[in-house]
Amino acid sequence: MKVAVQHAAIRVPGFRFAGVRCGLKESGKRDVALIVSAVPAAAAAAFTTNRVKAAPVLVGIERAKAGQLQAVVVNSGNANAYTGRHGLTMARRMCALVATELGIAERLVIPSSTGRIGVPLPRRNIETGVRAACRHLSGDAFHDALEGMMTTDAFPKFATAGMVNDGREITIAGITKGAGTIAPHMTLTGHATNLTYVLTDAAVSVTALRRALRVALPQSFNAIVVDGDTSTNDTALLLANGVAGNRRLTPSSGGFAEFCGAITRVMQALARMIVKDGEGATKVIDIRVRGGRTGRDAERVAATIARSPLCKTAFYGGDPYTGRIVCAAGYSGAVFDPQKMDMFFDDVQVVRRGEEIVGSIERRAAAVVRQPEFTLTIHLHAGTATAHRIASDLSVDYVKFNSDYRT
Amino acid sequence: MKVAVQHAAIRVPGFRFAGVRCGLKESGKRDVALIVSAVPAAAAAAFTTNRVKAAPVLVGIERAKAGQLQAVVVNSGNANAYTGRHGLTMARRMCALVATELGIAERLVIPSSTGRIGVPLPRRNIETGVRAACRHLSGDAFHDALEGMMTTDAFPKFATAGMVNDGREITIAGITKGAGTIAPHMTLTGHATNLTYVLTDAAVSVTALRRALRVALPQSFNAIVVDGDTSTNDTALLLANGVAGNRRLTPSSGGFAEFCGAITRVMQALARMIVKDGEGATKVIDIRVRGGRTGRDAERVAATIARSPLCKTAFYGGDPYTGRIVCAAGYSGAVFDPQKMDMFFDDVQVVRRGEEIVGSIERRAAAVVRQPEFTLTIHLHAGTATAHRIASDLSVDYVKFNSDYRT
Repeated sequence: MKVAVQHAAIRVPGFRFAGVRCGLKESGKRDVALIVSAVPAAAAAAFTTNRVKAAPVLVGIERAKAGQLQAVVVNSGNANAYTGRHGLTMARRMCALVATELGIAERLVIPSSTGRIGVPLPRRNIETGVRAACRHLSGDAFHDALEGMMTTDAFPKFATAGMVNDGREITIAGITKGAGTIAPHMTLTGHATNLTYVLTDAAVSVTALRRALRVALPQSFNAIVVDGDTSTNDTALLLANGVAGNRRLTPSSGGFAEFCGAITRVMQALARMIVKDGEGATKVIDIRVRGGRTGRDAERVAATIARSPLCKTAFYGGDPYTGRIVCAAGYSGAVFDPQKMDMFFDDVQVVRRGEEIVGSIERRAAAVVRQPEFTLTIHLHAGTATAHRIASDLSVDYVKFNSDYRT
Repeated sequence: MKVAVQHAAIRVPGFRFAGVRCGLKESGKRDVALIVSAVPAAAAAAFTTNRVKAAPVLVGIERAKAGQLQAVVVNSGNANAYTGRHGLTMARRMCALVATELGIAERLVIPSSTGRIGVPLPRRNIETGVRAACRHLSGDAFHDALEGMMTTDAFPKFATAGMVNDGREITIAGITKGAGTIAPHMTLTGHATNLTYVLTDAAVSVTALRRALRVALPQSFNAIVVDGDTSTNDTALLLANGVAGNRRLTPSSGGFAEFCGAITRVMQALARMIVKDGEGATKVIDIRVRGGRTGRDAERVAATIARSPLCKTAFYGGDPYTGRIVCAAGYSGAVFDPQKMDMFFDDVQVVRRGEEIVGSIERRAAAVVRQPEFTLTIHLHAGTATAHRIASDLSVDYVKFNSDYRT
């Protein structure tokens, strides 16, 4: 099995795509995306845990419960969040239009939105856009759909994987978008935002698909942090339409582990792209915590460092400032003995048993931190739990971009 | 009772001060401060809750337990944090020197440090500095001492209050320092950092002094957020030397409420100065949450908004972007119904029952957010609890300053 991320004409058997313009974006770029399966597909979905859920998320949570979906309709340029009853009406309207145009059941259509919060979704534009998308569906329009869901993204983000199961070639293709408001915390129960769709022609039971999502999420999207703001719209959706014709994968199938691994790797590749494209980001930092007393403690340390403005600005400046990292670990709420901590930038040890190693090490550490990607490893020596976060740095451009009136 | 914050020669009967240079700061500015009471004073102290506590904090926690102190010795330019056994030796050494030079008990001397984390405190400099400070003590050197504890501060921060109790004039004077690594969370049991000393000549019992600190802290220093990084060195210390000759104030004294109020107002004035001088800060925002289901929920909403990079950059840009605030409230972990929320910038209502008010309101809201100080009020309508945070915005200069190698 190989995960490919290079640009290529991507097709997923049994799926058609469209990406059109309806004037929601001032830039005039594509702002409506549509993904449709030829047949109802097994579906597993996860949504933001933000208490303020965008209208399409509220509709999505309801519809994903049945475990079967056939189409996803997405608009960018407007999050349809905090838009009251009008927002819910519009989210349902998007789905109803797709259902009518394509002659499928409305309950099999799920909506997503991303863009500015608190602005009513203009009915006329969205209706024109959704209708046009229905007319432009094509198996070759994968990249058009991807463009239609981008907002502040600097580049399109997709990844594919293939495997053989039950003698059949199986394709997995994932697309994602997002650059800011990134600290996804999605569960299966429920602006720039993270929207992710992973499509496969494999036949998979709903239970198996949900399990795959549950395994992949904490290792991918729920592990990334750009700014630490968890969006109102985050959505991750897996669709498996069974067109490949393999015997249906269940959690006990021989090929399930491989399938699960492929989904995880596709989602990890996508999640890393989000961090790389983080608003203003110049670096991707893998923060690995080992030796946590509990999983929660390890998570706390990793997440606190991933969000700390002082750590993130030091990373931006190429400064291996271990003191700021130690300080963040210290206020994370985790229980550990600071006098036992070890710390490494890649393989350069900078703290041993709670004391900073001084001398020539500092130059070597600085060389690591100046790289566009590096790993920070902290060993707490308080237990055996581990955690992993993938974070961007905090740059002058992040502030410039997000303080620009009404981005 | 009046709280004065203007510059003036400040004297507190029975207290002497010194501020000298010993070469810890590259700038060559004063880097050692000493405050000494003529007689042992009642003492109440609170320290950082960060698990990684600087050496002087560890020593301070031990010594503050007795409720009696006579001197505080402070160095700036080096936090003496994460410096192992050598750090503890140096923190004790600072106190021992003061005790020897002044002929007072070592257990009555408390140390503080602020500056870079993880750098050993140079013994020679600090010894020379502390000895010099002991020789320069004067009742008129309040401002020298204040300068000696400054790090990235753009201006000196002090406030005074006076009251009459038992027929005696009582003076209260507070000094504080800090601009970055500001999200104090101090309890009575704990780099740029927050160090605060409030001195009074009133006679006050240790119990009353501790109660006053316990009342004042959540309304002052524990309510402020610059970057959200909680320092390893935060310290707040109240000293009452009784030189005013009033009958000793206890929690049941008639004048205790007034005393408590004066301490609180001095600490609030000082805390607000820290935010105003927040690294790169251009605004001070009072975040007031009402109608919380519980106090913890109200605190969560206020604290999450105060730390949210998206909210803080919008404030910096003068953008009344209610969507980002609603989003932050939503992921704060507090339980509330988004459809009931009201929001105001000063007295301009921007959200009513979960829906953004559009139209000309937006221009009026933008005018509020462009001010250097404004209040954001959120009513959750989930209960009766309230919370208050005082936050700075997040500016390009914050990132520039903190990404500068080894600030």
